[in-house]
Amino acid sequence: MGVPQFKEIRRAYGYDEVAIVPGQVTINPDQTNIEFTLGPHKSAIPFLASSMDAVVSPKVAVLMGKLGGIGVLNLEGVWTRYEDADSVLVEVAAAPQDKATGLLQKVYSAPMKDNLVGQRVQEIKQGGATAAVALTPQNTKRIAPLAQEAGADILVVQATVTTARHISKSYRGLIFAELVESLRIPVIVGNCVTYGAALELMETGVNGLLIGVGPGAACTTREVVGVGVPQISATMDCAAAREEYSRRTGRYVPIITDGGIRTGGDVCKSFVAGADAVMLGTPFAQATEAPGRGYNWGMATPHAALPRGTRIRVGTKASLEQILFGPSNVTDGTMNLVSAMRVGMGMVGAFTIREFQQAELVYAPDIKAEGKVFQMAQGR
Amino acid sequence: MGVPQFKEIRRAYGYDEVAIVPGQVTINPDQTNIEFTLGPHKSAIPFLASSMDAVVSPKVAVLMGKLGGIGVLNLEGVWTRYEDADSVLVEVAAAPQDKATGLLQKVYSAPMKDNLVGQRVQEIKQGGATAAVALTPQNTKRIAPLAQEAGADILVVQATVTTARHISKSYRGLIFAELVESLRIPVIVGNCVTYGAALELMETGVNGLLIGVGPGAACTTREVVGVGVPQISATMDCAAAREEYSRRTGRYVPIITDGGIRTGGDVCKSFVAGADAVMLGTPFAQATEAPGRGYNWGMATPHAALPRGTRIRVGTKASLEQILFGPSNVTDGTMNLVSAMRVGMGMVGAFTIREFQQAELVYAPDIKAEGKVFQMAQGR
Amino acid sequence: MGVPQFKEIRRAYGYDEVAIVPGQVTINPDQTNIEFTLGPHKSAIPFLASSMDAVVSPKVAVLMGKLGGIGVLNLEGVWTRYEDADSVLVEVAAAPQDKATGLLQKVYSAPMKDNLVGQRVQEIKQGGATAAVALTPQNTKRIAPLAQEAGADILVVQATVTTARHISKSYRGLIFAELVESLRIPVIVGNCVTYGAALELMETGVNGLLIGVGPGAACTTREVVGVGVPQISATMDCAAAREEYSRRTGRYVPIITDGGIRTGGDVCKSFVAGADAVMLGTPFAQATEAPGRGYNWGMATPHAALPRGTRIRVGTKASLEQILFGPSNVTDGTMNLVSAMRVGMGMVGAFTIREFQQAELVYAPDIKAEGKVFQMAQGR
Amino acid sequence: MGVPQFKEIRRAYGYDEVAIVPGQVTINPDQTNIEFTLGPHKSAIPFLASSMDAVVSPKVAVLMGKLGGIGVLNLEGVWTRYEDADSVLVEVAAAPQDKATGLLQKVYSAPMKDNLVGQRVQEIKQGGATAAVALTPQNTKRIAPLAQEAGADILVVQATVTTARHISKSYRGLIFAELVESLRIPVIVGNCVTYGAALELMETGVNGLLIGVGPGAACTTREVVGVGVPQISATMDCAAAREEYSRRTGRYVPIITDGGIRTGGDVCKSFVAGADAVMLGTPFAQATEAPGRGYNWGMATPHAALPRGTRIRVGTKASLEQILFGPSNVTDGTMNLVSAMRVGMGMVGAFTIREFQQAELVYAPDIKAEGKVFQMAQGR
Repeated sequence: MGVPQFKEIRRAYGYDEVAIVPGQVTINPDQTNIEFTLGPHKSAIPFLASSMDAVVSPKVAVLMGKLGGIGVLNLEGVWTRYEDADSVLVEVAAAPQDKATGLLQKVYSAPMKDNLVGQRVQEIKQGGATAAVALTPQNTKRIAPLAQEAGADILVVQATVTTARHISKSYRGLIFAELVESLRIPVIVGNCVTYGAALELMETGVNGLLIGVGPGAACTTREVVGVGVPQISATMDCAAAREEYSRRTGRYVPIITDGGIRTGGDVCKSFVAGADAVMLGTPFAQATEAPGRGYNWGMATPHAALPRGTRIRVGTKASLEQILFGPSNVTDGTMNLVSAMRVGMGMVGAFTIREFQQAELVYAPDIKAEGKVFQMAQGR
Repeated sequence: MGVPQFKEIRRAYGYDEVAIVPGQVTINPDQTNIEFTLGPHKSAIPFLASSMDAVVSPKVAVLMGKLGGIGVLNLEGVWTRYEDADSVLVEVAAAPQDKATGLLQKVYSAPMKDNLVGQRVQEIKQGGATAAVALTPQNTKRIAPLAQEAGADILVVQATVTTARHISKSYRGLIFAELVESLRIPVIVGNCVTYGAALELMETGVNGLLIGVGPGAACTTREVVGVGVPQISATMDCAAAREEYSRRTGRYVPIITDGGIRTGGDVCKSFVAGADAVMLGTPFAQATEAPGRGYNWGMATPHAALPRGTRIRVGTKASLEQILFGPSNVTDGTMNLVSAMRVGMGMVGAFTIREFQQAELVYAPDIKAEGKVFQMAQGR
Repeated sequence: MGVPQFKEIRRAYGYDEVAIVPGQVTINPDQTNIEFTLGPHKSAIPFLASSMDAVVSPKVAVLMGKLGGIGVLNLEGVWTRYEDADSVLVEVAAAPQDKATGLLQKVYSAPMKDNLVGQRVQEIKQGGATAAVALTPQNTKRIAPLAQEAGADILVVQATVTTARHISKSYRGLIFAELVESLRIPVIVGNCVTYGAALELMETGVNGLLIGVGPGAACTTREVVGVGVPQISATMDCAAAREEYSRRTGRYVPIITDGGIRTGGDVCKSFVAGADAVMLGTPFAQATEAPGRGYNWGMATPHAALPRGTRIRVGTKASLEQILFGPSNVTDGTMNLVSAMRVGMGMVGAFTIREFQQAELVYAPDIKAEGKVFQMAQGR
Repeated sequence: MGVPQFKEIRRAYGYDEVAIVPGQVTINPDQTNIEFTLGPHKSAIPFLASSMDAVVSPKVAVLMGKLGGIGVLNLEGVWTRYEDADSVLVEVAAAPQDKATGLLQKVYSAPMKDNLVGQRVQEIKQGGATAAVALTPQNTKRIAPLAQEAGADILVVQATVTTARHISKSYRGLIFAELVESLRIPVIVGNCVTYGAALELMETGVNGLLIGVGPGAACTTREVVGVGVPQISATMDCAAAREEYSRRTGRYVPIITDGGIRTGGDVCKSFVAGADAVMLGTPFAQATEAPGRGYNWGMATPHAALPRGTRIRVGTKASLEQILFGPSNVTDGTMNLVSAMRVGMGMVGAFTIREFQQAELVYAPDIKAEGKVFQMAQGR
């Protein structure tokens, strides 16, 4: 009788399953340096706002720049489909929940207008911020040059799953090596979650990677198609690829954990797992200034035949500045994310993000449970 | 002192514990081929509808055929016990919940009528579809020839647990080798969940296996008798048997994951675990055309002395066509299952089901939890 | 720097975490033999009713005997403290929940009356049943002879945790070897949960062991003192001790899993983990004839200073006969436990309990979850 | 291609995941000795009350001493900021929940008054109790001498995470070796959770360690900054450091598990994991005499910019004496903690705390679940 060949199943970890272990040295939070460098651009804080219509408008991109981070504008959303995009967003926010998916499908069926691409980029530039813009692979070759022409500083090429090799009969796949060659500005590509895919993408010459498939609050890719990897493991694997690629070539390609981050704890864990920066959606959709006006939805939601994610009510919490820099008036970790990051770095004795990446994680699923049981015992 | 011999306990995985890892190559969903072949029969889509009275009527079998799949009619349910089976189903749907189990026990105590066997088969054939019919081992020897005579194309022999060897004093066990020998049509046998049982069943010459004991929504076998194996592991083990048997004999016996599938994600995971096709109950019981009229119940529910499972309210969601091919108006993955399958294949770079079976799975129990915690924080 | 010595933590399994794997042979349930032998006593079914006041009265002991099992009467409960014990039980059942623990503490502070020991034993004998009676180690030496004198057939010596060696300054510990020597009737001792403790107890010459610390529904030993081992692992470990002891000495000491069993599934899993018989509390407290009248409480509940567990409402379900032999009118596995056991044996191909002990278990925590998620999706 | 270097993730355990395995010998609880020795101070019971304003006032410190334990007064809380601290506490207890964090932030912004330090110490000494007082590292060098001068017996230096090496540009880090040298009284330092940090701290000459980061009910450090280790693993690791340090030097530095303990079960598990004593917050905040008047809050709650934790309603349960020594009128393990500890020791056959530390733990997450499922089945 032969030996059966069973598929192996690796363990993957998410935010709620791990905790950071304090270090043997501690430092004062004000000693920490959290700068993030991407090509020629240096950001004071390693926070990016997701290229979602509910999160980043040209105005929010300007504000993010002033606060030291980067807001990524989606060039395939309402801002390039409608002159008066704000009215459309007001309409989406006003729709009853059972009409939301249908309305979003309609809103996103309007055609993109090339002239709006340059206009939106210039709105951000005029505000004095780094203009980072996002496109899907299908539209990149055509629109990226327009965006660069208009002054875009960073290009993000983003799809649910992106690899160095894509096979299609309907269009010639985007060749990242050619793209990087043809542009003057840094290119961030994503999303990916594995060592192998990350390494191949780095080898094409791109300047940064987005890490994350499946975990975002406004995304249900895992339910709909079963695909996804929890963020801690995804970040760890892609960080291993970054180290390996850097060892071989001397070039350091930063990775940006994107999706599922809700609290300062999640931010810290992302860096300990290996991130160089983090990209947040829902936490920034909760800002007073957010174009989603208290709602968020994934950009795959309006898919005509297979919507993933839905418009969810996220509420409005505080100004973007307060969400990033406090003071916090809540105690659940969803505000003052920058201080939380510095305090966490202090507890593990990390002066820099590179040192923060060396801290230890434990698999500790039940700490929360301990608190919960207590509260249940109190009838609360 | 002797060394104690402790029983070993293997880890088994279910749908909610695993996720599919994206591949290093991606392909466009429209490049995928999802045909399913069983003996001389080729189906456009690898979807079977379960042989449950709430799921498949002769009409639904015809409709499934038109849509490219296969609906399996139970030859021991209401359709062979009652001329006017539809009235009985209406009565079941109308019963209050606390009377449901008792009514089902009564309904299924009516005798089977041999003349209805041929009639039901012909109803399906006249509709132009492949006629697949299901029997339990006890009744197979007597009724299978009648069904074949009437034109049945595929025979499914199904019990909660089926093995190549069954010992009984009340009747001579069904010998599958003899059965296969005596019939001209392909025989699918199930259910089984282990490498050993699957291998032995393949060795009897059967043409396909149903995989799954315990996981169905309408079944409580695990509570009542403690027996069951989660579907991912069951499928992985039986797929290993299929490969081993094929390596030895050159004959490829497809396996069909049956039970517990609710979403496109579950469909995709079944294939990645090794399935050649999937059999669904509850998702199809939610079709407008389903004979259960918004309810489902397992065929063990009406057991006279030891009922397992109950009539559960599943609701009515959309037409069978929309459940299979969309468009989806929900975002939870329960509609447009065929697109979901193709999109999943694209994300792992699989052109065929055989390639889809090679994708990687991770054990990732908490991704859902991440979303859930977020929603709780929002008070929703 | 030295190598740190960390404590090792073994994995232990409970009922809800495991499932039974179907076998490669199946047999008809009516082929199974489930007799249980303890010394000279042979029971038709391997079911014992716990020595709890809410579960076994002299009448219930007689009824259990008629049904083929064994009801164990607690000789330190209300039946030896009160002539008219039934009135006391009525009073307990009538008490409001917030007075229950206090009332139980008062009820059990009444002194035991030696004359009632013999009277209760005779009530059982006159009913024609095997008289099994339970004592704690502290009272065994004094009362066991009285019970044997009155005709008791089986003595159960039971405490939360029982070992072959107990050290006390307040009384000379009970020496089991001496006890067994001094009595003519079989002695069952418990509870224990480890290989080592079970082996030592067997070496004292006792005739059976009760397995289980912590898991009972009416017991909160694990919360209050942190001590407990889940039943599957406890049974597996003690079964390993039984095999080892039998290998060495040729004497077979049956083990009885006691505590936490609620369903036919739990019954089956206990045997697959290695049990020779099972002892049930709550499921029998739900019988129409149960003295608890819809309530149950652990015998540690009334502890004067450190009560563990509480009076819990268990409801009244059906007659004891129906709970054991069906037919079942529920589908959750809590009735017709004997059929469930036979059906489970059939699915793994076990003719006898000894063969049932050889079946395979998998660690499969999520099967339930699959069903649950489905139901949540249905808003039920 | 290089071999990827993935970060390793160790498993860490919390209270709800483990259970204590009964021993092969049992002893009567009244045989146990639970004395705790810290330098020249011997306590009858190894219980400390946390240095939280809601838990320990000078009066409670006196009462704890009378009961055989130690109450630690926080010298940076309301008692050194306000002459009439009790009025402030009354005000905090009276505030509505949505104002609580803000009020606490205001209350703790008042300056500390040096003259109150001595006064509070003397209030405890005059009550006849050991005066144990707590300071943060920042204030220790200045205030510790004042406290010692006033008669303090034990100094606790406490921060969320404390290491032997702390780097700050705003102040010269506290050097524990110098501190220990400069004081006559024993110094307890914390909190720490790892083998390495504990070993380094012991090497500075301190007399005891507090173990625990993250798990307390009134603390959300893990949510806010992601840092924390479950208590069982933290205690096990630091106990290993204690053993190693003692092996090398002959000096025994007791470790005190601090945070997350709610029940007698948690107390017992802490000792089995290796603790020499336990420090409790919430259970003592539930005492009639507690200054929190039914509330508790962590000392990080009022942080001006990054509040962690919140004021939680814990209720008032019984007198401090009854919580420690019973009798218990509840059955959930939250009262009569000393008896619970002795009963637990009896079940594993431990005469002393050193022996209790040798007992076995199993990872057994589901025992609770078993009970829960039962209760759900009962609709309760």
